[in-house]
Amino acid sequence: MFKDSTPAEIDTMLNQAWKAFHEYRKYSLKQRADFMRTIAIELENTGDALIQIAMRETHLPEARLRGERARTIFQLNSYAQACERGDWLEAKIDTAIPDKTPPKPDLRKMLIPLGPVIVFGASNFPFAYSTAGGDTACALAAGCPVIVKAHPAHPETSETVARAILAAADKCKLPNGVFTHVHGASFETGKALVMHPLTKAVGFTGSYTGGKQLFDWANERTVPIPVFAEMGSINPIFLLPERLQVASAEMAAQCAGSVTLGAGQFCTNPGLIIGIESEALQTFIHDLGKAIQQIAPAAMLHPGIVRSYKEKKGAALLEEGVHLVAESETPVKEDEGLPTIATATGKIFLQNPALHQEVFGPYSIVIRCQDIHEMIEVAKHLEGQLTATLMATEQEIKENESLVEAVKNICGRFILNGVPTGVEVCLSMHHGGPFPATTDSRFTSVGADGIKRFARPLAFQNWSDALLPNELKNGNPLDIYRTLNDKLTKDPC
Amino acid sequence: MFKDSTPAEIDTMLNQAWKAFHEYRKYSLKQRADFMRTIAIELENTGDALIQIAMRETHLPEARLRGERARTIFQLNSYAQACERGDWLEAKIDTAIPDKTPPKPDLRKMLIPLGPVIVFGASNFPFAYSTAGGDTACALAAGCPVIVKAHPAHPETSETVARAILAAADKCKLPNGVFTHVHGASFETGKALVMHPLTKAVGFTGSYTGGKQLFDWANERTVPIPVFAEMGSINPIFLLPERLQVASAEMAAQCAGSVTLGAGQFCTNPGLIIGIESEALQTFIHDLGKAIQQIAPAAMLHPGIVRSYKEKKGAALLEEGVHLVAESETPVKEDEGLPTIATATGKIFLQNPALHQEVFGPYSIVIRCQDIHEMIEVAKHLEGQLTATLMATEQEIKENESLVEAVKNICGRFILNGVPTGVEVCLSMHHGGPFPATTDSRFTSVGADGIKRFARPLAFQNWSDALLPNELKNGNPLDIYRTLNDKLTKDPC
Repeated sequence: MFKDSTPAEIDTMLNQAWKAFHEYRKYSLKQRADFMRTIAIELENTGDALIQIAMRETHLPEARLRGERARTIFQLNSYAQACERGDWLEAKIDTAIPDKTPPKPDLRKMLIPLGPVIVFGASNFPFAYSTAGGDTACALAAGCPVIVKAHPAHPETSETVARAILAAADKCKLPNGVFTHVHGASFETGKALVMHPLTKAVGFTGSYTGGKQLFDWANERTVPIPVFAEMGSINPIFLLPERLQVASAEMAAQCAGSVTLGAGQFCTNPGLIIGIESEALQTFIHDLGKAIQQIAPAAMLHPGIVRSYKEKKGAALLEEGVHLVAESETPVKEDEGLPTIATATGKIFLQNPALHQEVFGPYSIVIRCQDIHEMIEVAKHLEGQLTATLMATEQEIKENESLVEAVKNICGRFILNGVPTGVEVCLSMHHGGPFPATTDSRFTSVGADGIKRFARPLAFQNWSDALLPNELKNGNPLDIYRTLNDKLTKDPC
Repeated sequence: MFKDSTPAEIDTMLNQAWKAFHEYRKYSLKQRADFMRTIAIELENTGDALIQIAMRETHLPEARLRGERARTIFQLNSYAQACERGDWLEAKIDTAIPDKTPPKPDLRKMLIPLGPVIVFGASNFPFAYSTAGGDTACALAAGCPVIVKAHPAHPETSETVARAILAAADKCKLPNGVFTHVHGASFETGKALVMHPLTKAVGFTGSYTGGKQLFDWANERTVPIPVFAEMGSINPIFLLPERLQVASAEMAAQCAGSVTLGAGQFCTNPGLIIGIESEALQTFIHDLGKAIQQIAPAAMLHPGIVRSYKEKKGAALLEEGVHLVAESETPVKEDEGLPTIATATGKIFLQNPALHQEVFGPYSIVIRCQDIHEMIEVAKHLEGQLTATLMATEQEIKENESLVEAVKNICGRFILNGVPTGVEVCLSMHHGGPFPATTDSRFTSVGADGIKRFARPLAFQNWSDALLPNELKNGNPLDIYRTLNDKLTKDPC
């Protein structure tokens, strides 16, 4: 239905984006924010039509899609507000000290946009992490033109959202090339976009294979560029004995809900639950199994994902020492993922790295450790994760410092007595984590701090007030926070 | 004299550093700052002995070395102060909203250290960018253990400074492994350090070849790690006609001084000066040549650097269309670099990328463009730079937006009517720039913002006040700036 862009078309697009970059970066923070708010309005205006298209392409339920669009609109508005507030610019000013030896010059620094950013939409978030999603919003706030490659699993959804963005760009009288939408089911389109000399950064949400490939291409360039790839994880939940003793039923219900939410198609899905062998753990496993049996299977995003879920789950269940605990008792249709819980011992898990792999879908494995030492070993042997969760009493946190420190080493968000699914959009959210959760643990893809992925500092030395950008002028006309001679303030110089 | 560390020794060191990491990261900001201040005192205590050793190993003059040590002490103290102030933690708090649908959890985020950092010292800054230099100070402030590989050109200097750091660690009762010093003239030592699984980041200052190799190794790891390599640049100076008309003599004197400062061995050395063909430019070239003739050659750091300077300069002068303008008239000794100015047309420069390469030493080439359009073309064709300079009147800046924007694209520090040498240590300094100036334009190696190279955000979700780190507790016991529900403040929650 949609043709892949040719290399010549991609070259034209990037040249146009590069030209637009020089105009767009001069737009004030307020103008950028207004553009983002206009996109939010246009996205709202896509109405039922967009929901219908997305339902057909993604098999996600209507309520979820309406909720996700609302979240996408919230993201655009909240990042617009953060863009305008300007804290992310990290403006810093040191005024001149002419009588120092040698004389200290006037120096003023702020973040400026990197240039055209390629955004690869995610299949599991057709709105919030696709065409007008978090990466696009962050790049536009930073002052970067965006080229979105539509996810081939929802091209018409992407096309419809792209039209909304272009309508907003038109209303805000932005230059052509600030936003571009391309299709490309082939490997070559993605590569051509990442390798183009005028591409300055990449945002991606998806599989390890996809993200790592983009990262490798970007580093093979004559001029390497930053890639922020969020590649998912298995989000371990550690169950501590005292807490399990008093709240087993509640914990089992929480886990069952989190494992199966959205057919398990969240990057924060808990694919691993770790406890210590005991009667309470057996009760927990029994309760979790019972709960899973009662949860009906749900349609997954596309046939490729259903196939992959079946294959990966099947392979995991065939690994030595892995036992099936329970499956949903509702008969499963061809396009659905069957909620499933497995179990194995800590020893088996430590011996077999295959069990550390993500099984994308409504599946989780409960690991039964011999004792707390084995649980700590499991934590130490885990790969980088977006999140890790402890279910524990306050006393248990205080008494198990080695475990807490080992878990801290592997995650970007550390949850106590909650579940990892449900990623709040706010400044203090961190959606990132050590590799392979992401390609750079120092950045986030949720929350307005994600803007900083697409910006770099530039220091102005010895520029007169008249020539400096408004963000750095003596009078602080934008009324933003700046570090002035080592002190955070809104004061003028 | 100093033996290379073996792979087994490196493995032991990294394991010790990893163990120390778990202790050291719990040290308060004040304790880390006290450690850094104690290093500064111990470095001061190395007295004349250190200066003598460094003079012998680097051939740098005494005054320069005393100045550089003072700068290193200043860095340690000023980064200690920034460490304690805590702005760099980017602490952010969003308090819970239980009656939201779904309920919003309590979320609190701050930067935490990455883990053991390998620092490769620079040959041209035996103190300020070596053993106790900027990278070490930043990593220690972040809470990371440091392993310094001594630069093979000044191993005894490095060893002496390392002893000062270890004495400070002892006085502050730090665990073994917070600081480690290794020697390694061979390629293999560097590789083993970067490839070790417990290494979490790398800091480097030096050549493109060296830095790019470390970057490639780090990305080839099963778990890639961030490398901040500052690889130098040619720091173009653009001369605009009106300013040249009124200040030619002053500009020639400034350029001559900057090109030959420290035998041209600064990463901010201006190796490229671009003007527009005119009588005034001829006068400038003549004056610059005259000034260079009067400047005596100085000893370079080590025989390898002298050899490389001669070879690269010789090759540049043999390129088609490149003409010698002037050399120092003082006879040059074997260990010295001869101050030299060459010239070529804009056309020649645009055709020959070999002329864009850094010639490390007291050499610069003046490019004579036909007109402003050719000058803009030169700017557009330049690689990433640490700095770029405009010498221009205020009116010329306003009238030449295309040039200003093109130059902005390629640099990390943008200087007006000054020279790039002289890198002020302060928060608003940016010492970084687009590749190949550095491997990541989003970070700096000068100024306390360099701490952020070695830290990553961690979000705590739903932790009680008693369990949270002091930085994030309700009462704000450390009295640091935090973004509380979207507002920068020192207020308690």
